[in-house]
Amino acid sequence: MDDDTGALPLKEDFSAWYNDLLWRAEIMDVRYPVKGLYVWYPYGFAIRKFVYQRLRDLLDRDHQETLFPLLIPEQEFMKEAEHIKGFEDEVYWVTHGGKTPLDVKLALRPTSETAIYPMYALWVRSHADLPIKYYQIVNTFRYETKQTRPLIRLREITSFKEAHTVHATWEEAGEQVEEAIRIYSEFYDGLCIPTIVSKRPDWDKFPGADYTIAVDTIMPNGKTLQIGTVHHLGDHFSRTFNITFEDKNGERKFAYQTCYGISERSIAALISIHGDDKGLVLPPAVATFQVVIVPITIGTRHEDVIAAAQKLSSILSAAGIRVKLDTREMRPGAKYYWWEIRGVPLRLELGPRDLDAGKVMAVKRTGGKTAVDLATAPEEITHMLCEITENLRARAEDHTRTHLCPANSIDFLKNTLDKGNVAVIHWCQDRGCGESIEEQTNGSILGTDVRSPYVPAVEGICIACKKPGKPTIVGRAY
Amino acid sequence: MDDDTGALPLKEDFSAWYNDLLWRAEIMDVRYPVKGLYVWYPYGFAIRKFVYQRLRDLLDRDHQETLFPLLIPEQEFMKEAEHIKGFEDEVYWVTHGGKTPLDVKLALRPTSETAIYPMYALWVRSHADLPIKYYQIVNTFRYETKQTRPLIRLREITSFKEAHTVHATWEEAGEQVEEAIRIYSEFYDGLCIPTIVSKRPDWDKFPGADYTIAVDTIMPNGKTLQIGTVHHLGDHFSRTFNITFEDKNGERKFAYQTCYGISERSIAALISIHGDDKGLVLPPAVATFQVVIVPITIGTRHEDVIAAAQKLSSILSAAGIRVKLDTREMRPGAKYYWWEIRGVPLRLELGPRDLDAGKVMAVKRTGGKTAVDLATAPEEITHMLCEITENLRARAEDHTRTHLCPANSIDFLKNTLDKGNVAVIHWCQDRGCGESIEEQTNGSILGTDVRSPYVPAVEGICIACKKPGKPTIVGRAY
Repeated sequence: MDDDTGALPLKEDFSAWYNDLLWRAEIMDVRYPVKGLYVWYPYGFAIRKFVYQRLRDLLDRDHQETLFPLLIPEQEFMKEAEHIKGFEDEVYWVTHGGKTPLDVKLALRPTSETAIYPMYALWVRSHADLPIKYYQIVNTFRYETKQTRPLIRLREITSFKEAHTVHATWEEAGEQVEEAIRIYSEFYDGLCIPTIVSKRPDWDKFPGADYTIAVDTIMPNGKTLQIGTVHHLGDHFSRTFNITFEDKNGERKFAYQTCYGISERSIAALISIHGDDKGLVLPPAVATFQVVIVPITIGTRHEDVIAAAQKLSSILSAAGIRVKLDTREMRPGAKYYWWEIRGVPLRLELGPRDLDAGKVMAVKRTGGKTAVDLATAPEEITHMLCEITENLRARAEDHTRTHLCPANSIDFLKNTLDKGNVAVIHWCQDRGCGESIEEQTNGSILGTDVRSPYVPAVEGICIACKKPGKPTIVGRAY
Repeated sequence: MDDDTGALPLKEDFSAWYNDLLWRAEIMDVRYPVKGLYVWYPYGFAIRKFVYQRLRDLLDRDHQETLFPLLIPEQEFMKEAEHIKGFEDEVYWVTHGGKTPLDVKLALRPTSETAIYPMYALWVRSHADLPIKYYQIVNTFRYETKQTRPLIRLREITSFKEAHTVHATWEEAGEQVEEAIRIYSEFYDGLCIPTIVSKRPDWDKFPGADYTIAVDTIMPNGKTLQIGTVHHLGDHFSRTFNITFEDKNGERKFAYQTCYGISERSIAALISIHGDDKGLVLPPAVATFQVVIVPITIGTRHEDVIAAAQKLSSILSAAGIRVKLDTREMRPGAKYYWWEIRGVPLRLELGPRDLDAGKVMAVKRTGGKTAVDLATAPEEITHMLCEITENLRARAEDHTRTHLCPANSIDFLKNTLDKGNVAVIHWCQDRGCGESIEEQTNGSILGTDVRSPYVPAVEGICIACKKPGKPTIVGRAY
């Protein structure tokens, strides 16, 4: 780690804050010698581990984890016309093995439809095989020509969770889309990250899909970040890859499919939304350490205090709390700073006077200081961790609520976006109107059929053509 | 899954048995349309998950998990001369992003020294930063020209655990080598896989290492499989990548390094060593399901039996046992066959008569049938799972012991290898003698400094030149 050569920028200078925090909190090192590829520090990787374990736990209820190869032969990759068009400019190609040119070029998966579906064609035989609900967590690759950003726009997405399901009917696939949205909502709620779910306009759907439902969140600078997508694939891919099944009447039919993904953008959102001017603030559910104990020792009482801190650490560990006892030879203040920037939700300060009083001082990373009885520490601390979670959730919800603003005219919409907000407009869903709105405001139509407690589902007048329109989210997107 | 079109070959026809078992037990599908790349079925992936979780648990005691990029720029990859020579023929190269040729070719990591060590050069500053003990579990790539085999010889190694450590002195790095061997021994002992640890001859060490200690196991056909390696890298890489630290006296010094790896060959060994003519046999520690309950229902008692089976399933789950209740509409015999081939360690058969007697019939996959009291089922079944583990360990140890044969002459050595055994010879460690032995017997000198309870550490006479020699393992290696 580099030496600390100054203070963290204020969070209102979001881009500088974000880049600085990533290395100060030891999340990612951006100095890897290839553009768009980054290194996970162990501290950041531990957060990733907890976040993805939650995602696995949610999916494992009725999905199964699997693993497909990274390399996709050119002929498979090129099979689905719309899909290729969506990806051909950003696919990395392996052309040589050793010094030998390969007979068939191999694509690094940008996403795995074309790796998985030829196998599904072998696996699906009868209606009794359906539904199939598999997922994998893998690295995927995009030759991004836009500016790259750690965790947000990458050339190696290191942590792509992609699920691929197969169903007997279009309707069942549609129900699975809804189920995926429920899973993603639960996942993000567990991370205290507010979400806005909407249906992407047709020109922005996944290449080869019937429709795409997206999960966005509002970042501290008011830009929106797409942190999950769910695609109804209809039977496009099953026709291309010949995924058929025999139905109950013995007829052979094409299957219907969905796919849905989440990447390490989930962690970009986690860091960005909860962090503050002092650094990271981690929800206890995914904190590397949920509690840090800082012993404050003076002279002769050193051993007493250390012994008590060790005992407290053991008791908290036994209660299932991830606790770090920091016995390094540093000033307590330097330790506070160290763990604050790393976002540990709760700090316990234990000195001789606390010990004599049978207490420990608990300092919440979200604010507030309380003396806690050592005798009842596990219960009280578990309770405080819940409070911190609720603080974070409330703060984040508040940010979303106050940054979602209705806009009734193009001018007002532009103004809303310029001020760092996300707008709710009405739009007639005509592509011409959509493009006109986007061009005039430098915004993106994120979607219609909005699911958000802050967006009432009432019809209105399209801000471009004045015909009847539906509630629509417009933002400046990452 | 394909329909079952015949019986599993006998295990004595090992290669046919192995290939057949992989798909019948739903471990890997070999039909992916690129040579040397395979697909993990969910059932196989679950085994992988349990195996790698054990490995993580062992390493996490004093290592930290991290994640580095897959793509290595040509100039970094080409820095260490010996290392390149070892890998240049088998590296996949990415040359294009979209339709654009890349300015710098990118290697798919065959192993990550050249990805990780430029970062270590940035991270290591002072003796206080040492030791560093990081690991990652990643996919790596080798353009194998030899015959590929699922889990054994792959073009995409999907599950490479590689650890990379940095130390202040050569001796400390040497101690870390010993620690890594202890970790690997404990890991394989947990999987009931016997290991033979030895020091590879100089010409077979890792490209760029001072020395390599390898972990081999004896496969059912008598061939040896390398299932782990530990390398003392000396200061070769630290000199190339400029990994230096300031010691306590303020002097700048090159660091010393080790690296050590385990791949999905651990799972190839697990499957091969424990499996039998009926299919997979999984040690309970890593079994997808440790217990399967098969209700045997006849007419009116159907609901009673199912209710009792569900209750038993809940009780066992609550006791921390991974249990599968199989209520599919199939004959019990077909279910027995299904779960036997998939290696579930313990089968519980529950019928009306068992229920009346307050019993359940427990059938061990390793042989033996016992009626167990429903009232004390969790304790008895936990105990039986331990017995199965011990059965597997004893059986595997026995195989190793009886297949490790001393050989005092070249002829006898060749004969020993031809009979499907691994030989213990004495060898003077001269390369000429080594090559002569290998050529005459079509065997490989696996190593000296052998650590195995079955190989006494007594000096002898080199079977090639009759000079003094050390105990040495010779085998036919995968």
